[in-house]
Amino acid sequence: MPTKPAPRPDLARIHQPIAAELEEVERRIQSQMATYQGVVGDLMGHVAKFAGKRMRPSVCVLSGRALGPANTVHYDVAVVAEMIHTATLVHDDVLDGADTRRSLPSVNTRWGTEVSVLFGDYLFAKAFSLCASIPNRDVLLTMAETAKVMCLGELLQNVNRFNFALAEADYIDIVSRKTAHLFGSCAELGALASGAGPEIRKSMREFGIALGIAFQIVDDHLDLIGDEAEVGKTLGTDLDKGKVTLPLIGLFAQLPDKKRREVEELISDPKATGKRGILVDLIEAHGLRSFALDRADEYVAEAKEKLSALPRSSFRDALEALADYVVVRRH
Amino acid sequence: MPTKPAPRPDLARIHQPIAAELEEVERRIQSQMATYQGVVGDLMGHVAKFAGKRMRPSVCVLSGRALGPANTVHYDVAVVAEMIHTATLVHDDVLDGADTRRSLPSVNTRWGTEVSVLFGDYLFAKAFSLCASIPNRDVLLTMAETAKVMCLGELLQNVNRFNFALAEADYIDIVSRKTAHLFGSCAELGALASGAGPEIRKSMREFGIALGIAFQIVDDHLDLIGDEAEVGKTLGTDLDKGKVTLPLIGLFAQLPDKKRREVEELISDPKATGKRGILVDLIEAHGLRSFALDRADEYVAEAKEKLSALPRSSFRDALEALADYVVVRRH
Repeated sequence: MPTKPAPRPDLARIHQPIAAELEEVERRIQSQMATYQGVVGDLMGHVAKFAGKRMRPSVCVLSGRALGPANTVHYDVAVVAEMIHTATLVHDDVLDGADTRRSLPSVNTRWGTEVSVLFGDYLFAKAFSLCASIPNRDVLLTMAETAKVMCLGELLQNVNRFNFALAEADYIDIVSRKTAHLFGSCAELGALASGAGPEIRKSMREFGIALGIAFQIVDDHLDLIGDEAEVGKTLGTDLDKGKVTLPLIGLFAQLPDKKRREVEELISDPKATGKRGILVDLIEAHGLRSFALDRADEYVAEAKEKLSALPRSSFRDALEALADYVVVRRH
Repeated sequence: MPTKPAPRPDLARIHQPIAAELEEVERRIQSQMATYQGVVGDLMGHVAKFAGKRMRPSVCVLSGRALGPANTVHYDVAVVAEMIHTATLVHDDVLDGADTRRSLPSVNTRWGTEVSVLFGDYLFAKAFSLCASIPNRDVLLTMAETAKVMCLGELLQNVNRFNFALAEADYIDIVSRKTAHLFGSCAELGALASGAGPEIRKSMREFGIALGIAFQIVDDHLDLIGDEAEVGKTLGTDLDKGKVTLPLIGLFAQLPDKKRREVEELISDPKATGKRGILVDLIEAHGLRSFALDRADEYVAEAKEKLSALPRSSFRDALEALADYVVVRRH
């Protein structure tokens, strides 16, 4: 019997112990984007408004503050991570042909594909340039490796579109690369910047990766099963692009061969309509409505376990609350 | 009266003093691209076949050898530069909708836009990851800055399409950013890796930038005025994309207002045919056939002057021959 959903924890409340630090991160992000004129200035101003939940900066800063006072490296890593994330959003919108991003026209819609590709490249180069100026080789090497892993994850996801044989382990591998490694690097480098040794760094990286996997699983779950009004954006885009996500993998495992082939044909048919409704009904009929969320919960539990590497503090509590937030968030 | 064109110097002959070093660069490029399986392996194998003239590696190695023996940093810079260059080629082909690249299908044609965008990103990230491993901060900072400048140049070029008011100085600024700075960084970092001080580094950077500007001017000249059979690729692509290049800027300066507006309308008309022929006739009628090449010659002369910072050697001679090659090359 479904239990009543927990009330959505307020992200601002979770971030309360690092409110001042996140303001500093915000100032630095805005100042990185403010020194341009002409079209590049317009582009920068536009993506500056994309301002999302700043999850990556908060993971970095909380991880750092749990082990010491905030310093410049925390801020630099936070800004670099958010900039790499923004670059991938700009390119994602090109790939997905997305019209809007956080209720604003996507760069793609407003400036066209070419400018979007080039502007994404520019943001990426800018992130690296900032990263190169951080006087800590480990930070640089970690971020360079992370960018590579992320691109590879996106590539793997793309070449596996309409690959209905995709196993859960392959899906997790893709999600881990394209989304979770950046969270892992934020958590690890936050700790590193506070002088943490290799063991704590490793635990924090694992925390970030588990958190990131849960985060992406929930995103993918909502895109297929969510309620558009509640989530606040167009859903079903993964289905249209042939991205085989966890709820589908769960369903495929339950379907008899013949039915499975029918569903594959339905998803592959560019002319078919109402795909999402049909699939949601099937998923519910097989009792799989919370299949993906249950997996996300497992990763959240894993993430929280890793936090035992940190001393008790309001920052550690906030990291724990952030892990919970990832599965209950709705938009 | 036109003089008989000089015979095309053989690039292999110019490269002869660094034949062994360029073989080592080639081995390293191929080994960077060889360790992949699946689609990424196919993509890597495909772009490995794009192998062009390796101009950037040769500028780096010649600059380095003119000041000392070859070392790992020379090779790393050469590989990073070629990898960044390859990444921009992959994205350029997306932007230009190019079908072929060096007589092979473009990544775009074979794998589609999405894979091309992501694979370009991946090559870019890979270049940075390799760069981050070079134990010399100046190399990293220079390359990071260069990548930023290149992306900005491409963006500026793109937003200035069909901007018929583009001044020669703006054109040179764009060309300098998108093409020449990478040559400048190769020349500078080659010298730096041989232990050169700030003055020689500066001269070599200026050499590379002047060489790069001349290189791009010739490219743009050939795209408008060249002979397809002789150049060996489809020409007129700049015109189709509304890129206002130096031969056009020279022509606009000579045309009376009314004729100028007619030409602008012709270029802007997506349905007009035979644009290139009409423009070439106009350019010849105004005695401007060699207008852009004359400018390129000036940059070559400037590049060669900068070489006086180097001691006399077969490597310095080769750099001089390379500067000459840039304006006489035909494909």
